[in-house]
Amino acid sequence: MEKYKFFDLPEFSTVKDILENERKNYVITLFGLCKILYAGRASSIATYSSRLITFKPDGSVLVHSNKKLKPVNWQPSSSEVKVEIGDELNIYVERKRPKEVLEILMPIVYYLSLSKVDEGEFHLFGSESEMVEEVVKNPELISRDFIPLEREYQTPFGKIDLLGVTSTGYLILEFKRAQAGLEAVSQLKRYVDYLSWKGERVRGGIVAPSISKSALKLLKKYGLEYFQLSPKLLPTIRLK
Amino acid sequence: MEKYKFFDLPEFSTVKDILENERKNYVITLFGLCKILYAGRASSIATYSSRLITFKPDGSVLVHSNKKLKPVNWQPSSSEVKVEIGDELNIYVERKRPKEVLEILMPIVYYLSLSKVDEGEFHLFGSESEMVEEVVKNPELISRDFIPLEREYQTPFGKIDLLGVTSTGYLILEFKRAQAGLEAVSQLKRYVDYLSWKGERVRGGIVAPSISKSALKLLKKYGLEYFQLSPKLLPTIRLK
Repeated sequence: MEKYKFFDLPEFSTVKDILENERKNYVITLFGLCKILYAGRASSIATYSSRLITFKPDGSVLVHSNKKLKPVNWQPSSSEVKVEIGDELNIYVERKRPKEVLEILMPIVYYLSLSKVDEGEFHLFGSESEMVEEVVKNPELISRDFIPLEREYQTPFGKIDLLGVTSTGYLILEFKRAQAGLEAVSQLKRYVDYLSWKGERVRGGIVAPSISKSALKLLKKYGLEYFQLSPKLLPTIRLK
Repeated sequence: MEKYKFFDLPEFSTVKDILENERKNYVITLFGLCKILYAGRASSIATYSSRLITFKPDGSVLVHSNKKLKPVNWQPSSSEVKVEIGDELNIYVERKRPKEVLEILMPIVYYLSLSKVDEGEFHLFGSESEMVEEVVKNPELISRDFIPLEREYQTPFGKIDLLGVTSTGYLILEFKRAQAGLEAVSQLKRYVDYLSWKGERVRGGIVAPSISKSALKLLKKYGLEYFQLSPKLLPTIRLK
Protein backbone atom coordinates (compact mmCIF):
# COMPACT_ATOMS: atom_id res chain seq x y z
CA MET A 1 0.00 0.00 0.00
CA GLU A 2 1.46 3.33 -1.03
CA LYS A 3 1.90 6.18 1.43
CA TYR A 4 -0.09 8.60 -0.71
CA LYS A 5 -1.54 9.12 -4.18
CA PHE A 6 -2.81 12.15 -6.04
CA PHE A 7 -5.35 12.35 -8.88
CA ASP A 8 -5.55 15.54 -10.90
CA LEU A 9 -9.08 16.21 -12.33
CA PRO A 10 -10.19 12.60 -11.74
CA GLU A 11 -13.09 11.01 -13.66
CA PHE A 12 -16.28 10.45 -11.64
CA SER A 13 -15.75 6.71 -12.01
CA THR A 14 -12.30 6.99 -10.41
CA VAL A 15 -13.69 8.96 -7.47
CA LYS A 16 -16.53 6.45 -7.02
CA ASP A 17 -14.12 3.53 -7.15
CA ILE A 18 -11.76 5.07 -4.59
CA LEU A 19 -14.50 6.23 -2.20
CA GLU A 20 -16.10 2.79 -2.27
CA ASN A 21 -12.97 0.64 -2.09
CA GLU A 22 -10.18 2.61 -0.42
CA ARG A 23 -12.12 4.43 2.27
CA LYS A 24 -11.00 2.08 5.06
CA ASN A 25 -7.33 2.35 4.06
CA TYR A 26 -6.74 6.05 3.48
CA VAL A 27 -7.83 9.51 4.51
CA ILE A 28 -9.33 10.74 1.23
CA THR A 29 -9.51 14.43 0.40
CA LEU A 30 -11.59 15.84 -2.47
CA PHE A 31 -11.27 19.42 -3.62
CA GLY A 32 -14.10 20.43 -5.92
CA LEU A 33 -17.23 22.41 -6.57
CA CYS A 34 -20.02 21.12 -4.38
CA LYS A 35 -23.55 21.70 -3.18
CA ILE A 36 -24.47 20.05 0.10
CA LEU A 37 -27.83 19.04 1.53
CA TYR A 38 -28.16 17.82 5.08
CA ALA A 39 -31.18 16.38 6.85
CA GLY A 40 -31.25 15.01 10.34
CA ARG A 41 -31.66 16.87 13.60
CA ALA A 42 -31.91 20.03 11.53
CA SER A 43 -31.61 20.55 7.79
CA SER A 44 -29.24 22.74 5.81
CA ILE A 45 -28.20 23.71 2.32
CA ALA A 46 -24.70 24.86 1.38
CA THR A 47 -24.86 26.34 -2.13
CA TYR A 48 -22.37 25.51 -4.92
CA SER A 49 -18.90 26.55 -3.89
CA SER A 50 -15.33 25.17 -3.90
CA ARG A 51 -14.78 23.25 -0.68
CA LEU A 52 -12.40 20.68 0.75
CA ILE A 53 -14.03 17.38 1.75
CA THR A 54 -12.25 14.79 3.91
CA PHE A 55 -13.32 11.17 4.41
CA LYS A 56 -11.64 9.26 7.25
CA PRO A 57 -11.30 5.45 7.58
CA ASP A 58 -13.55 5.42 10.68
CA GLY A 59 -16.44 6.83 8.61
CA SER A 60 -16.26 10.46 9.70
CA VAL A 61 -16.63 13.10 6.99
CA LEU A 62 -15.73 16.81 7.14
CA VAL A 63 -16.60 19.58 4.67
CA HIS A 64 -14.44 22.67 5.10
CA SER A 65 -14.76 26.16 3.67
CA ASN A 66 -11.89 28.70 3.80
CA LYS A 67 -12.75 29.91 7.30
CA LYS A 68 -12.93 28.72 10.88
CA LEU A 69 -12.01 25.51 12.65
CA LYS A 70 -15.48 24.03 12.48
CA PRO A 71 -16.48 22.28 9.27
CA VAL A 72 -19.48 23.66 7.32
CA ASN A 73 -21.03 20.19 7.39
CA TRP A 74 -19.92 16.90 8.90
CA GLN A 75 -20.94 13.36 9.73
CA PRO A 76 -19.51 11.43 12.69
CA SER A 77 -17.66 8.11 12.60
CA SER A 78 -19.48 4.94 11.52
CA SER A 79 -21.23 6.75 8.68
CA GLU A 80 -21.70 4.88 5.40
CA VAL A 81 -20.80 6.28 2.00
CA LYS A 82 -22.57 5.52 -1.30
CA VAL A 83 -21.72 7.08 -4.64
CA GLU A 84 -23.90 7.49 -7.76
CA ILE A 85 -22.86 8.94 -11.08
CA GLY A 86 -25.26 11.18 -12.99
CA ASP A 87 -24.77 14.64 -14.49
CA GLU A 88 -23.04 15.28 -11.21
CA LEU A 89 -21.21 13.03 -8.78
CA ASN A 90 -23.69 12.27 -5.97
CA ILE A 91 -22.14 11.20 -2.67
CA TYR A 92 -24.49 10.07 0.10
CA VAL A 93 -23.12 9.89 3.62
CA GLU A 94 -25.57 8.21 5.94
CA ARG A 95 -25.63 7.70 9.67
CA LYS A 96 -28.21 5.18 10.84
CA ARG A 97 -28.90 6.09 14.48
CA PRO A 98 -29.92 8.81 14.82
CA LYS A 99 -30.74 8.94 11.10
CA GLU A 100 -28.85 11.72 9.36
CA VAL A 101 -28.01 12.11 5.69
CA LEU A 102 -25.43 14.32 4.03
CA GLU A 103 -25.83 14.57 0.26
CA ILE A 104 -22.86 15.99 -1.62
CA LEU A 105 -23.44 16.99 -5.27
CA MET A 106 -20.28 17.66 -7.25
CA PRO A 107 -20.26 18.82 -10.90
CA ILE A 108 -16.45 18.80 -10.83
CA VAL A 109 -13.68 17.30 -8.70
CA TYR A 110 -10.46 19.29 -9.11
CA TYR A 111 -8.32 16.82 -7.26
CA LEU A 112 -8.46 13.76 -5.07
CA SER A 113 -5.70 12.73 -2.68
CA LEU A 114 -5.21 9.53 -0.71
CA SER A 115 -3.07 9.80 2.44
CA LYS A 116 -1.97 6.95 4.73
CA VAL A 117 -2.60 8.96 7.89
CA ASP A 118 -1.87 7.33 11.27
CA GLU A 119 -3.42 7.86 14.65
CA GLY A 120 -0.18 8.35 16.55
CA GLU A 121 0.19 8.83 20.26
CA PHE A 122 -1.22 11.86 21.99
CA HIS A 123 -0.42 12.93 25.56
CA LEU A 124 -2.29 15.70 27.30
CA PHE A 125 -0.85 17.41 30.37
CA GLY A 126 -2.66 19.76 32.71
CA SER A 127 -5.97 17.93 32.37
CA GLU A 128 -8.83 18.11 34.87
CA SER A 129 -8.12 14.50 35.77
CA GLU A 130 -4.56 15.48 36.77
CA MET A 131 -5.91 18.34 38.89
CA VAL A 132 -8.23 15.92 40.74
CA GLU A 133 -5.25 13.58 41.24
CA GLU A 134 -3.26 16.40 42.79
CA VAL A 135 -6.05 17.32 45.21
CA VAL A 136 -6.54 13.67 46.20
CA LYS A 137 -2.80 13.47 47.02
CA ASN A 138 -2.73 16.89 48.70
CA PRO A 139 -6.21 17.49 50.16
CA GLU A 140 -4.84 20.44 52.19
CA LEU A 141 -4.87 22.36 48.89
CA ILE A 142 -8.64 22.65 49.54
CA SER A 143 -8.67 22.86 53.34
CA ARG A 144 -7.01 21.34 56.40
CA ASP A 145 -10.01 19.21 57.26
CA PHE A 146 -10.85 18.00 53.74
CA ILE A 147 -10.93 14.21 53.25
CA PRO A 148 -11.47 13.00 49.66
CA LEU A 149 -13.94 10.10 49.42
CA GLU A 150 -14.67 9.26 45.78
CA ARG A 151 -13.79 10.41 42.26
CA GLU A 152 -16.41 10.34 39.49
CA TYR A 153 -19.25 9.87 41.98
CA GLN A 154 -22.36 9.05 39.92
CA THR A 155 -25.61 10.97 40.53
CA PRO A 156 -28.79 10.98 38.39
CA PHE A 157 -27.74 14.49 37.31
CA GLY A 158 -24.17 13.79 36.24
CA LYS A 159 -20.84 12.65 37.71
CA ILE A 160 -19.26 14.55 40.60
CA ASP A 161 -15.53 15.09 39.90
CA LEU A 162 -14.58 14.64 43.55
CA LEU A 163 -16.75 14.01 46.58
CA GLY A 164 -15.25 14.43 50.05
CA VAL A 165 -16.07 15.45 53.61
CA THR A 166 -15.02 18.21 55.99
CA SER A 167 -15.99 18.81 59.61
CA THR A 168 -19.24 20.47 58.41
CA GLY A 169 -20.46 17.65 56.09
CA TYR A 170 -19.99 16.68 52.46
CA LEU A 171 -17.97 18.82 50.07
CA ILE A 172 -18.59 18.45 46.32
CA LEU A 173 -15.80 19.68 44.03
CA GLU A 174 -16.19 20.49 40.32
CA PHE A 175 -12.86 20.91 38.46
CA LYS A 176 -12.15 23.07 35.40
CA ARG A 177 -8.70 23.28 33.85
CA ALA A 178 -9.44 26.70 32.30
CA GLN A 179 -11.57 29.62 33.45
CA ALA A 180 -14.81 28.41 35.06
CA GLY A 181 -18.00 29.91 33.62
CA LEU A 182 -21.73 29.90 34.37
CA GLU A 183 -22.15 26.31 33.19
CA ALA A 184 -19.63 25.02 35.73
CA VAL A 185 -21.56 26.75 38.53
CA SER A 186 -24.89 25.34 37.30
CA GLN A 187 -23.36 21.88 37.05
CA LEU A 188 -22.08 22.07 40.64
CA LYS A 189 -25.46 23.41 41.79
CA ARG A 190 -27.19 20.29 40.36
CA TYR A 191 -24.97 17.98 42.45
CA VAL A 192 -25.34 20.08 45.61
CA ASP A 193 -29.13 20.17 45.15
CA TYR A 194 -29.17 16.39 44.64
CA LEU A 195 -27.37 15.62 47.93
CA SER A 196 -29.42 18.29 49.74
CA TRP A 197 -32.65 16.70 48.50
CA LYS A 198 -31.38 13.44 50.00
CA GLY A 199 -31.15 15.22 53.34
CA GLU A 200 -27.35 15.57 53.51
CA ARG A 201 -25.42 18.56 54.83
CA VAL A 202 -23.43 19.63 51.80
CA ARG A 203 -21.12 22.39 50.51
CA GLY A 204 -19.94 22.79 46.93
CA GLY A 205 -16.86 24.30 45.33
CA ILE A 206 -15.38 25.07 41.91
CA VAL A 207 -11.67 24.25 41.56
CA ALA A 208 -10.17 26.18 38.63
CA PRO A 209 -7.29 28.52 37.70
CA SER A 210 -9.80 31.38 37.37
CA ILE A 211 -13.54 32.13 37.29
CA SER A 212 -15.56 34.62 35.24
CA LYS A 213 -17.22 37.59 36.95
CA SER A 214 -20.75 36.41 36.21
CA ALA A 215 -19.94 32.87 37.37
CA LEU A 216 -18.49 34.19 40.63
CA LYS A 217 -21.62 36.29 41.18
CA LEU A 218 -23.88 33.26 40.61
CA LEU A 219 -21.63 31.09 42.79
CA LYS A 220 -22.01 33.51 45.71
CA LYS A 221 -25.78 33.79 45.18
CA TYR A 222 -25.98 30.00 45.46
CA GLY A 223 -23.76 29.97 48.56
CA LEU A 224 -21.06 27.94 46.80
CA GLU A 225 -17.27 28.35 47.00
CA TYR A 226 -14.27 28.88 44.73
CA PHE A 227 -10.84 27.28 45.19
CA GLN A 228 -8.07 28.69 43.00
CA LEU A 229 -5.84 25.95 41.55
CA SER A 230 -3.97 25.82 38.25
CA PRO A 231 -3.28 22.64 36.31
CA LYS A 232 0.41 21.73 36.10
CA LEU A 233 1.81 22.12 32.62
CA LEU A 234 4.79 20.09 31.48
CA PRO A 235 7.81 22.35 32.19
CA THR A 236 9.74 21.50 28.99
CA ILE A 237 7.06 22.83 26.66
CA ARG A 238 6.00 25.83 28.64
CA LEU A 239 5.36 29.01 26.68
CA LYS A 240 8.53 30.98 25.91
CA MET B 1 -4.24 32.86 -9.29
CA GLU B 2 -4.61 29.18 -10.03
CA LYS B 3 -7.46 27.11 -8.60
CA TYR B 4 -5.11 24.57 -7.05
CA LYS B 5 -1.51 23.34 -7.06
CA PHE B 6 0.16 20.18 -5.85
CA PHE B 7 3.76 19.63 -4.75
CA ASP B 8 5.05 16.08 -4.46
CA LEU B 9 7.79 15.67 -1.80
CA PRO B 10 8.44 19.43 -1.62
CA GLU B 11 11.74 20.88 -0.35
CA PHE B 12 11.57 22.54 3.10
CA SER B 13 12.31 25.89 1.42
CA THR B 14 9.26 25.47 -0.84
CA VAL B 15 7.01 24.69 2.12
CA LYS B 16 8.38 27.68 4.04
CA ASP B 17 7.90 29.98 1.06
CA ILE B 18 4.31 28.85 0.49
CA LEU B 19 3.29 28.93 4.17
CA GLU B 20 4.70 32.43 4.56
CA ASN B 21 3.47 33.95 1.30
CA GLU B 22 0.38 32.07 0.12
CA ARG B 23 -1.39 31.46 3.41
CA LYS B 24 -3.90 34.29 2.90
CA ASN B 25 -4.81 33.09 -0.61
CA TYR B 26 -5.22 29.34 -0.31
CA VAL B 27 -6.22 26.56 2.03
CA ILE B 28 -2.89 24.73 2.36
CA THR B 29 -2.72 21.05 3.23
CA LEU B 30 0.48 19.27 4.28
CA PHE B 31 0.71 15.52 4.57
CA GLY B 32 3.82 14.41 6.36
CA LEU B 33 5.49 12.90 9.38
CA CYS B 34 5.12 15.25 12.34
CA LYS B 35 5.60 15.67 16.05
CA ILE B 36 3.47 18.32 17.70
CA LEU B 37 3.98 20.26 20.91
CA TYR B 38 1.25 22.48 22.27
CA ALA B 39 1.38 24.89 25.21
CA GLY B 40 -1.40 27.20 26.30
CA ARG B 41 -4.37 26.41 28.50
CA ALA B 42 -3.02 22.88 28.79
CA SER B 43 0.00 21.29 27.15
CA SER B 44 0.24 18.25 24.92
CA ILE B 45 2.63 16.15 22.89
CA ALA B 46 1.63 14.20 19.78
CA THR B 47 4.48 11.82 18.93
CA TYR B 48 5.89 11.36 15.41
CA SER B 49 3.20 10.07 13.10
CA SER B 50 1.81 10.73 9.61
CA ARG B 51 -0.90 13.36 9.88
CA LEU B 52 -2.80 15.77 7.68
CA ILE B 53 -2.32 19.45 8.55
CA THR B 54 -4.56 22.19 7.13
CA PHE B 55 -3.87 25.94 7.23
CA LYS B 56 -6.79 28.26 6.39
CA PRO B 57 -6.56 31.88 5.14
CA ASP B 58 -8.19 33.19 8.34
CA GLY B 59 -5.31 31.78 10.42
CA SER B 60 -6.98 28.64 11.72
CA VAL B 61 -4.92 25.43 11.70
CA LEU B 62 -6.11 21.84 12.05
CA VAL B 63 -4.06 18.67 12.59
CA HIS B 64 -5.98 15.50 11.77
CA SER B 65 -5.22 11.86 12.48
CA ASN B 66 -7.10 8.99 10.77
CA LYS B 67 -9.96 9.01 13.27
CA LYS B 68 -12.77 11.20 14.56
CA LEU B 69 -14.17 14.55 13.54
CA LYS B 70 -12.16 16.51 16.06
CA PRO B 71 -8.58 17.42 15.13
CA VAL B 72 -5.76 16.09 17.33
CA ASN B 73 -4.47 19.65 17.70
CA TRP B 74 -5.71 22.99 16.42
CA GLN B 75 -5.33 26.75 16.63
CA PRO B 76 -8.22 29.16 16.03
CA SER B 77 -8.42 31.94 13.43
CA SER B 78 -6.08 34.94 13.70
CA SER B 79 -3.13 32.72 14.57
CA GLU B 80 0.27 33.63 13.11
CA VAL B 81 2.56 31.18 11.36
CA LYS B 82 6.38 31.26 11.34
CA VAL B 83 8.60 28.69 9.70
CA GLU B 84 12.25 27.81 10.44
CA ILE B 85 14.39 25.30 8.60
CA GLY B 86 16.78 23.07 10.54
CA ASP B 87 17.25 19.30 10.51
CA GLU B 88 13.47 19.33 10.51
CA LEU B 89 10.92 21.82 9.27
CA ASN B 90 9.77 23.80 12.34
CA ILE B 91 6.37 25.45 12.03
CA TYR B 92 5.26 27.73 14.87
CA VAL B 93 1.59 28.65 15.04
CA GLU B 94 1.01 31.32 17.64
CA ARG B 95 -2.12 32.88 19.07
CA LYS B 96 -1.49 36.04 21.07
CA ARG B 97 -4.51 36.32 23.40
CA PRO B 98 -4.80 34.04 25.19
CA LYS B 99 -1.22 33.02 24.44
CA GLU B 100 -1.06 29.57 22.88
CA VAL B 101 1.67 28.00 20.77
CA LEU B 102 1.52 25.00 18.49
CA GLU B 103 4.93 23.76 17.39
CA ILE B 104 4.95 21.36 14.44
CA LEU B 105 8.19 19.49 13.76
CA MET B 106 8.34 17.73 10.38
CA PRO B 107 11.28 15.58 9.25
CA ILE B 108 9.46 14.95 5.95
CA VAL B 109 6.60 16.48 3.98
CA TYR B 110 5.11 13.92 1.58
CA TYR B 111 2.95 16.42 -0.24
CA LEU B 112 1.64 19.95 -0.09
CA SER B 113 -1.52 21.12 -1.82
CA LEU B 114 -2.91 24.60 -2.36
CA SER B 115 -6.68 24.87 -2.85
CA LYS B 116 -8.67 28.00 -3.69
CA VAL B 117 -11.48 27.12 -1.29
CA ASP B 118 -14.47 29.51 -1.01
CA GLU B 119 -16.76 30.25 1.86
CA GLY B 120 -20.01 29.74 -0.02
CA GLU B 121 -23.50 30.29 1.30
CA PHE B 122 -24.90 28.19 4.08
CA HIS B 123 -28.55 28.06 5.14
CA LEU B 124 -29.71 26.26 8.25
CA PHE B 125 -33.35 25.26 8.69
CA GLY B 126 -34.96 24.02 11.86
CA SER B 127 -32.83 26.23 14.06
CA GLU B 128 -33.70 27.32 17.59
CA SER B 129 -34.16 30.84 16.29
CA GLU B 130 -36.86 29.57 13.88
CA MET B 131 -38.59 27.75 16.73
CA VAL B 132 -38.69 30.98 18.77
CA GLU B 133 -40.07 32.78 15.69
CA GLU B 134 -42.87 30.24 15.44
CA VAL B 135 -43.84 30.61 19.10
CA VAL B 136 -43.79 34.41 18.83
CA LYS B 137 -46.20 34.16 15.86
CA ASN B 138 -48.31 31.43 17.50
CA PRO B 139 -48.08 31.93 21.28
CA GLU B 140 -51.01 29.54 21.76
CA LEU B 141 -48.47 26.75 21.03
CA ILE B 142 -47.35 27.36 24.65
CA SER B 143 -50.67 28.29 26.26
CA ARG B 144 -53.81 30.33 25.61
CA ASP B 145 -52.79 33.15 27.93
CA PHE B 146 -49.11 33.38 26.90
CA ILE B 147 -47.94 36.79 25.65
CA PRO B 148 -44.36 36.94 24.32
CA LEU B 149 -42.49 40.07 25.48
CA GLU B 150 -38.84 39.90 24.43
CA ARG B 151 -36.42 37.63 22.57
CA GLU B 152 -32.79 37.33 23.72
CA TYR B 153 -33.52 39.04 27.04
CA GLN B 154 -30.16 39.77 28.67
CA THR B 155 -29.52 38.72 32.28
CA PRO B 156 -26.19 38.66 34.17
CA PHE B 157 -26.39 34.86 33.88
CA GLY B 158 -26.99 34.54 30.14
CA LYS B 159 -29.62 35.45 27.52
CA ILE B 160 -33.20 34.24 27.89
CA ASP B 161 -34.42 32.84 24.52
CA LEU B 162 -37.95 34.17 25.04
CA LEU B 163 -39.43 36.07 27.95
CA GLY B 164 -43.21 36.42 28.17
CA VAL B 165 -46.09 36.67 30.61
CA THR B 166 -49.14 34.60 31.46
CA SER B 167 -51.95 35.29 33.93
CA THR B 168 -49.71 33.97 36.74
CA GLY B 169 -46.63 36.12 36.05
CA TYR B 170 -43.50 35.89 33.92
CA LEU B 171 -42.77 32.81 31.83
CA ILE B 172 -39.18 32.14 30.75
CA LEU B 173 -38.71 29.80 27.78
CA GLU B 174 -35.47 28.02 26.86
CA PHE B 175 -35.48 26.47 23.35
CA LYS B 176 -33.54 23.42 22.13
CA ARG B 177 -33.81 22.12 18.58
CA ALA B 178 -32.77 18.59 19.60
CA GLN B 179 -33.31 16.58 22.78
CA ALA B 180 -33.00 18.79 25.87
CA GLY B 181 -30.54 17.54 28.49
CA LEU B 182 -29.46 18.44 32.02
CA GLU B 183 -27.58 21.53 30.85
CA ALA B 184 -30.73 23.03 29.33
CA VAL B 185 -32.56 22.60 32.63
CA SER B 186 -29.69 24.15 34.60
CA GLN B 187 -29.56 27.05 32.15
CA LEU B 188 -33.29 27.70 32.55
CA LYS B 189 -32.95 27.41 36.34
CA ARG B 190 -30.34 30.22 36.34
CA TYR B 191 -32.76 32.60 34.58
CA VAL B 192 -35.71 31.64 36.79
CA ASP B 193 -33.55 32.11 39.92
CA TYR B 194 -32.41 35.50 38.62
CA LEU B 195 -35.94 36.88 38.17
CA SER B 196 -37.06 35.28 41.46
CA TRP B 197 -34.18 37.01 43.28
CA LYS B 198 -35.47 40.28 41.83
CA GLY B 199 -38.80 39.56 43.50
CA GLU B 200 -40.77 38.59 40.39
CA ARG B 201 -43.37 35.83 40.15
CA VAL B 202 -41.87 33.54 37.51
CA ARG B 203 -42.33 30.17 35.79
CA GLY B 204 -39.88 28.51 33.45
CA GLY B 205 -40.21 26.05 30.58
CA ILE B 206 -38.06 24.05 28.15
CA VAL B 207 -39.32 24.02 24.55
CA ALA B 208 -37.83 21.08 22.63
CA PRO B 209 -38.79 18.09 20.45
CA SER B 210 -37.85 15.76 23.33
CA ILE B 211 -36.20 15.72 26.75
CA SER B 212 -33.93 13.15 28.42
CA LYS B 213 -35.20 11.18 31.42
CA SER B 214 -32.68 12.70 33.83
CA ALA B 215 -33.43 16.22 32.55
CA LEU B 216 -37.17 15.67 33.00
CA LYS B 217 -36.56 14.44 36.57
CA LEU B 218 -34.47 17.51 37.40
CA LEU B 219 -37.01 19.80 35.68
CA LYS B 220 -39.80 18.47 37.90
CA LYS B 221 -37.64 18.72 41.04
CA TYR B 222 -37.09 22.40 40.22
CA GLY B 223 -40.82 22.93 39.52
CA LEU B 224 -40.18 23.84 35.89
CA GLU B 225 -42.18 22.82 32.79
CA TYR B 226 -41.70 21.11 29.43
CA PHE B 227 -43.41 22.11 26.17
CA GLN B 228 -43.04 19.64 23.31
CA LEU B 229 -42.32 21.38 19.98
CA SER B 230 -40.30 20.19 16.99
CA PRO B 231 -38.35 22.48 14.68
CA LYS B 232 -39.70 22.62 11.13
CA LEU B 233 -37.37 21.01 8.62
CA LEU B 234 -37.38 22.06 4.99
CA PRO B 235 -39.78 19.59 3.29
CA THR B 236 -37.73 19.14 0.10
CA ILE B 237 -34.70 17.71 1.87
CA ARG B 238 -36.47 15.63 4.44
CA LEU B 239 -35.00 12.19 5.13
CA LYS B 240 -36.13 9.56 2.66
